Amino acid sequence: MPNIYADRIAALRALMQQNSWDAVLIGASDPHNSEYPALRWKQVEWISGFTAEAADVLITAEHAGLWTDSRYFIQAASELAGTGVELHKTRIPGAVGIPQYLAELTAKRPLRIALDGLCWSSAAVAEILDAVPSAEIISVPNLLDELWENRPTVPSTPILALDCSFSGVKERYLKLNDLRKWMLKQEVDNILISSLDEIAYLLNIRASDIEYNPYSISYLLVGGDYARWFVKKSETEDIDTNDSYEELQRDEVTIDYYENIILGIEELEEGSNIFVDSSLNYHILKALEERNIKVKAGQSPLKLAKAVKEPQEIEALRSCYIEDGLAMVRFLFWLEQELAKAEKEGRTITEWDASEKLTQFRAEILEYRGNSFENISAYGPSAALPHYCMNKNNALILRPRGLYLCDSGGQYLNGTTDITRTVALGPCTELEKQDYTYVLKAMINLSMAIFPRGTAGCQIDALAREVLWRTHRNYGHGTGHGIGFYLGVHEGPQDIRQNFNPQPLLPGMVNSNEPGLYREGMHGVRHENVLVCVEDGSEDWLKFETLTCCHFDTQAILVELLNEEELTWLNAYNSSVYERLKERLTPAENSWLRAKTAAISMTRGK
Amino acid sequence: MPNIYADRIAALRALMQQNSWDAVLIGASDPHNSEYPALRWKQVEWISGFTAEAADVLITAEHAGLWTDSRYFIQAASELAGTGVELHKTRIPGAVGIPQYLAELTAKRPLRIALDGLCWSSAAVAEILDAVPSAEIISVPNLLDELWENRPTVPSTPILALDCSFSGVKERYLKLNDLRKWMLKQEVDNILISSLDEIAYLLNIRASDIEYNPYSISYLLVGGDYARWFVKKSETEDIDTNDSYEELQRDEVTIDYYENIILGIEELEEGSNIFVDSSLNYHILKALEERNIKVKAGQSPLKLAKAVKEPQEIEALRSCYIEDGLAMVRFLFWLEQELAKAEKEGRTITEWDASEKLTQFRAEILEYRGNSFENISAYGPSAALPHYCMNKNNALILRPRGLYLCDSGGQYLNGTTDITRTVALGPCTELEKQDYTYVLKAMINLSMAIFPRGTAGCQIDALAREVLWRTHRNYGHGTGHGIGFYLGVHEGPQDIRQNFNPQPLLPGMVNSNEPGLYREGMHGVRHENVLVCVEDGSEDWLKFETLTCCHFDTQAILVELLNEEELTWLNAYNSSVYERLKERLTPAENSWLRAKTAAISMTRGK
Repeated sequence: MPNIYADRIAALRALMQQNSWDAVLIGASDPHNSEYPALRWKQVEWISGFTAEAADVLITAEHAGLWTDSRYFIQAASELAGTGVELHKTRIPGAVGIPQYLAELTAKRPLRIALDGLCWSSAAVAEILDAVPSAEIISVPNLLDELWENRPTVPSTPILALDCSFSGVKERYLKLNDLRKWMLKQEVDNILISSLDEIAYLLNIRASDIEYNPYSISYLLVGGDYARWFVKKSETEDIDTNDSYEELQRDEVTIDYYENIILGIEELEEGSNIFVDSSLNYHILKALEERNIKVKAGQSPLKLAKAVKEPQEIEALRSCYIEDGLAMVRFLFWLEQELAKAEKEGRTITEWDASEKLTQFRAEILEYRGNSFENISAYGPSAALPHYCMNKNNALILRPRGLYLCDSGGQYLNGTTDITRTVALGPCTELEKQDYTYVLKAMINLSMAIFPRGTAGCQIDALAREVLWRTHRNYGHGTGHGIGFYLGVHEGPQDIRQNFNPQPLLPGMVNSNEPGLYREGMHGVRHENVLVCVEDGSEDWLKFETLTCCHFDTQAILVELLNEEELTWLNAYNSSVYERLKERLTPAENSWLRAKTAAISMTRGK
Repeated sequence: MPNIYADRIAALRALMQQNSWDAVLIGASDPHNSEYPALRWKQVEWISGFTAEAADVLITAEHAGLWTDSRYFIQAASELAGTGVELHKTRIPGAVGIPQYLAELTAKRPLRIALDGLCWSSAAVAEILDAVPSAEIISVPNLLDELWENRPTVPSTPILALDCSFSGVKERYLKLNDLRKWMLKQEVDNILISSLDEIAYLLNIRASDIEYNPYSISYLLVGGDYARWFVKKSETEDIDTNDSYEELQRDEVTIDYYENIILGIEELEEGSNIFVDSSLNYHILKALEERNIKVKAGQSPLKLAKAVKEPQEIEALRSCYIEDGLAMVRFLFWLEQELAKAEKEGRTITEWDASEKLTQFRAEILEYRGNSFENISAYGPSAALPHYCMNKNNALILRPRGLYLCDSGGQYLNGTTDITRTVALGPCTELEKQDYTYVLKAMINLSMAIFPRGTAGCQIDALAREVLWRTHRNYGHGTGHGIGFYLGVHEGPQDIRQNFNPQPLLPGMVNSNEPGLYREGMHGVRHENVLVCVEDGSEDWLKFETLTCCHFDTQAILVELLNEEELTWLNAYNSSVYERLKERLTPAENSWLRAKTAAISMTRGK
């Protein structure tokens, strides 16, 4: 098998030599700092073969390295095998990041470092310059274009303007008013919005430019009396024939070409200032700095506004999660029936088949617009990879024993979902049962939390972990991430993890709660519900309301490991799932779910 | 009653006018950033009458203000009444700190701000200059000298050199070696040690210059081949007749006069560099910067070295805490007996009497050298002030009902202790019992914690708080602070509180665990044990070992609020206290403690 990655790296090194570049940095992001870039920007995959989202690549004449964190160690080791690209682990004690690695190289000589400035945040470049002050950064927009044959173009998909009365989102002009009020207060003349989810949020538009993320690749410039949306992709679109564009124009949003953002910057009023998000790409920031314009960088005010859902949005989410839960219940019912039938008939069902079926169930929902990320359908040892990537060819066959983990979610007109259920496909080992039960305890303990207003996620993360820690169990990922409203399945500014993120959890914020446990080569467990933060009786105290509406399988639970409070929570939750879904189920599904959600007790016969 | 504070403020304002100062800042600290300053530096008290430690005062022509945090709101309101000094609350939402307050003044005119640069950290001054870049800072050493009649001089008490074989501390020359190794690695030529506890730690010396803190007021300059201790107070001491000085000189530590630190700085080698702790006072830092010497500021390496106790120190602490626990048990026995007797005989016992008696019991311990802070002996509503200050005249009379809280500690040759017990003096209200029990649950839950190496205190603080939060209870102070070894009762760098302090808890660190609950005008509860962090089976996992050896009163416990795990912990702890102390008690104390530590159960009759 020819090593295409070695060939591409060789081609890049030739280009480096030609330009006297000592190093080329290839980031995993796009010009909008998106978590999931469009195909055009899967540059890390193109150069290294590594398919996950969170990695950077550094190429020098002597070395090709890929930096990623613990979620991807196993996957990276496997995908990089034979490519000549070496794995560098981040977020572990003693980790040497790219800036430090470059600093060590620099000890030998001052470096000329080339990168596609559109795909690197100015913060990341600043971090490199902090570590290597002597380095020269050469920003080359679309650096890989001349090496990458048939590189995909900037995507362009139809724009949907949201119906506020259905989805519960706030009217566009009200959001623009809020933003302009903030600008006035902060003495900001112009704001450049570069995050795709913030643009989608503010303009109440959705598209499908990026897989799983309903965004339109674009920039938005807003001033006190104008709003210019740089969205149109020249080759493929005609402004005048797009209904959504017309609707935006009625709200005084001007539509422009994507490439014209640089022109837009040049047309900003001399001597005025502009606010940009700290995540703005290096290339555009440089362009701003070259103009006589004062740049204020910080956290975009839309980030928090977007994270705190409106009461009507929460109401819409409750319906959305019931529909999504229904699809999950139907899927789990199908899985159990089908597996038994297949065993009898000598057929096999794979992780892939299950995943496809799950997507089918979701697709039956009226409001469904796609999945919110790639289904993780992982049996046995596959589930030990928290972000397992499976395809039709490597999918494992499901057998009537052990644990099956499924992490999935949908994009709907009335919300974004994310759910993980781990179920026993048959008899489980004692260790599987213990792990299953301890992780469930962790999930339940965080669900039950009550905390004073002002508390940040990192201050309650341990409420999930402690029950695992007690038996020397732990997981290497965060406990919870923010979730958008028919937007990204991951969003900030809040999260629930050990990192010191000072953003308090606020009423209206939607977060996942997903502790896990992973035993390489054996099995993995993760239980994930989505919670909305709500007041608890007074505005001083907050708690969580669970949105997710799908039962937890009780088969693999070691009841004696649950305390009374946890058991009460579990039985009440499962029973409420049944109550909310029962009218919508077929008789067979109904009696199955009734049995699945029947209360378990300490004295249950094992 | 004449208002002496108004007179002093008026005198200061006259001085301000004379010098054209717009503002004078008076800090609560001494030149060594000590938590408890010697009398000479109780400048905040002198100017405002406020007696607690954590406050700053700002005087302008129009305004006299005192800034302090929630621990002292009640006390400050009471002590400042009638002084003309206004209370400004810090660490509350929307708080306006001194820098921000000054910034608002500056909007009117550029300010000339005078302060005693010896008593302000350079960080605090930098914070002011950040907020008010136009301000002129005038550092006037000993600014209050000419106004303050009979101002106390810099204290000077006998120096004790620790016996390493008894106390378990590491030999002085080994500690100096460790420090010089660190300096070599960090390319540091000189280090100025200004924190009094670090000097005492490094030199294995103790003194009594500051109440409750066994320090000697001094500076220490260390280089690769020298160590100069600026400690001698000119008026009162003769170097040649002090045995401890001789011992130090044998370890090649040169003794010099306290005032000579500025000369010492001038004698540093031209072109060399110096490391100073970020807490170094503004005046000395300025003096360093005026020399041709590169100043590196950061966290002193001694801070962490001091916090991680040696195994022999931990062994010594175990004995120390048994002796201290014995004194506490004797005190609680005496309290119960004496209170009953006094009631019968028509006598009264006050908070003050109890405090005096407790100190007597401690003083009977061979290794006792004093208290580690002022006893908090607080009955009923007094206990609602977490840092209650009581004197003979305002002391409440103890009655045979409700809760009595006692927070105290000793300084011993083999350690520093800190313990809080809350006990029922007779029948309690339901609310008192609930509060008592919930706080105990909080204390127990943190005691039982197991966590991975690398975990910081703020990441487990919620393990104590969550049981309180569940019923909308909380406390406004940290859960735990580091404790020195016959040093300060508060020490860093670690702590267990909500603030994002990144310092991980390490094996050998000693911390308090002291959740509380305070109901103004009613009662207060705090339960405090001291814990040492130890490995749990492997170096990857850590837990706490409780050092404190004094039972928890079970009278006020609502057993039904404890879960099985908490009850088991409590019974095991109380029983282990009895086992460790029983041989040392009189028959009467013994049978009393046996009864007090008898296991309680869920079915206990109430």
